[in-house]
Amino acid sequence: MLELNTRLCLGLDPRPESHPSTHPKQFDFDPAATATAVLKHCLEVLEATSPYIACVKPQVAFYEALGIPGLEVLDKICHAAKELGLPIILDAKRGDFPSTAEAYASAWLTGERAGTALTINPFLGFETITPFLKAAQNNDGAIFVLVKTSNPGSSDLQDLQTAHGTISEIIAKHLSELATSETSYGAVGAVIGATHTQELEHFRKLLPKVLLLLPGLGAQGAKARDLAPAFDAEGLGAIASSSRAIQYASSGSDYVNAARAAAKTMRDQLETALQNR
Amino acid sequence: MLELNTRLCLGLDPRPESHPSTHPKQFDFDPAATATAVLKHCLEVLEATSPYIACVKPQVAFYEALGIPGLEVLDKICHAAKELGLPIILDAKRGDFPSTAEAYASAWLTGERAGTALTINPFLGFETITPFLKAAQNNDGAIFVLVKTSNPGSSDLQDLQTAHGTISEIIAKHLSELATSETSYGAVGAVIGATHTQELEHFRKLLPKVLLLLPGLGAQGAKARDLAPAFDAEGLGAIASSSRAIQYASSGSDYVNAARAAAKTMRDQLETALQNR
Repeated sequence: MLELNTRLCLGLDPRPESHPSTHPKQFDFDPAATATAVLKHCLEVLEATSPYIACVKPQVAFYEALGIPGLEVLDKICHAAKELGLPIILDAKRGDFPSTAEAYASAWLTGERAGTALTINPFLGFETITPFLKAAQNNDGAIFVLVKTSNPGSSDLQDLQTAHGTISEIIAKHLSELATSETSYGAVGAVIGATHTQELEHFRKLLPKVLLLLPGLGAQGAKARDLAPAFDAEGLGAIASSSRAIQYASSGSDYVNAARAAAKTMRDQLETALQNR
Repeated sequence: MLELNTRLCLGLDPRPESHPSTHPKQFDFDPAATATAVLKHCLEVLEATSPYIACVKPQVAFYEALGIPGLEVLDKICHAAKELGLPIILDAKRGDFPSTAEAYASAWLTGERAGTALTINPFLGFETITPFLKAAQNNDGAIFVLVKTSNPGSSDLQDLQTAHGTISEIIAKHLSELATSETSYGAVGAVIGATHTQELEHFRKLLPKVLLLLPGLGAQGAKARDLAPAFDAEGLGAIASSSRAIQYASSGSDYVNAARAAAKTMRDQLETALQNR
């Protein structure tokens, strides 16, 4: 999944309230018109930034918020990403009972979504990761399991210390076991917030053969120059994701050029960070 | 939300593979025909069991698995439940960053879904519960936050001991604080698996003023006679949910009568359990 010329993932989290004034701005005013505007904005940003990104991560919540028109928009964005040869990570954070997880996995990782990666919430236990991993492995996809999320409140539960380490560490160890048989980065990925710069090296060591997805670059405060410890000795094994700081680099009519410039800058900063370490 | 003559919630988790032979059985063969069959099965079971149930809990994964036709089916089932005067708990187990949680809350708790309850995964931290609770409170809805899920693997993370209690206990204490200002059962609910019969009394005490949703009655092995400790002194404060054991009480053409009989039996067993304690 990781293209060698970039370690940047474009998050496409459409927020109509940040659109230029010529676009509809409300989620609930006119869903069809909003969905059309969201599609246009996302597709333009996707195409403009495509030379600088390794993959695309749509946050499913923002499409669900537009109802069925929003989910149709999501389908079209995934189609466009495929046409551009860009892998897709659907940030849906699904997680449920084993038999229910099978249904979610069927929805998000099979059929027309074969080859897609999905973010997974492990709170219900390790048996609930299995159906997602099986579906990913059978469909040339991947999973990215939440280990340590980038929001400040992630400490409430994820940092709690137990006899076997923190909750995040326990999940990391389980993922590492799931990836034991892999020869390199494969279907098992982990989400580690880019904002936790002090912990990146620790999780990199806990998670050999596990591709790290690092959300939070840009608007959430993480800086590219701090992310080098998340990468392996070859400069691989991680991918940093930025959403608002690219898609809404400008709320004016110059948003396409602004997004392109922001993506290029972040791509370059990530390369520099890796060269200078 | 709790009707006095019943403490039973009907889970509607459509599994086409369990349909009678006259119905399409595959998720991925013909989505439109499958969605039509799922709608028919769910509406018939809903109507037949309505005298015996307090509310309806569709598991969103099974509708998502049918794609957009499945989500249209979910809308129609919610509409039918409203017509029958039955509150709806959407079992979507959503959970994400505060700003993303706002988008999910907008999708599932506002507009046409005002008055609905939603299940919430708290793994990302307590700040991520707030947007859901606000949306629920502003729209006459409710949230049911996962505290201890009914699957065996729930012990992997939820039972881990920390300096402040188990993960489940820490979440329960937070929910109890959120509900402090309530005069009776209000917008803050908790999910406690009905299968954990030894822990029901403990969580009932930890969660005063928090309505307990107890999934797992029937097919998952929980028995109505063991659930009395989840209820308060007035016999209120909890609701037990059964899905497969009602909806698929029969996989033959008698499924409607079988579902009605199963719901009546469970309703009666719950009443007996409360009277005999």
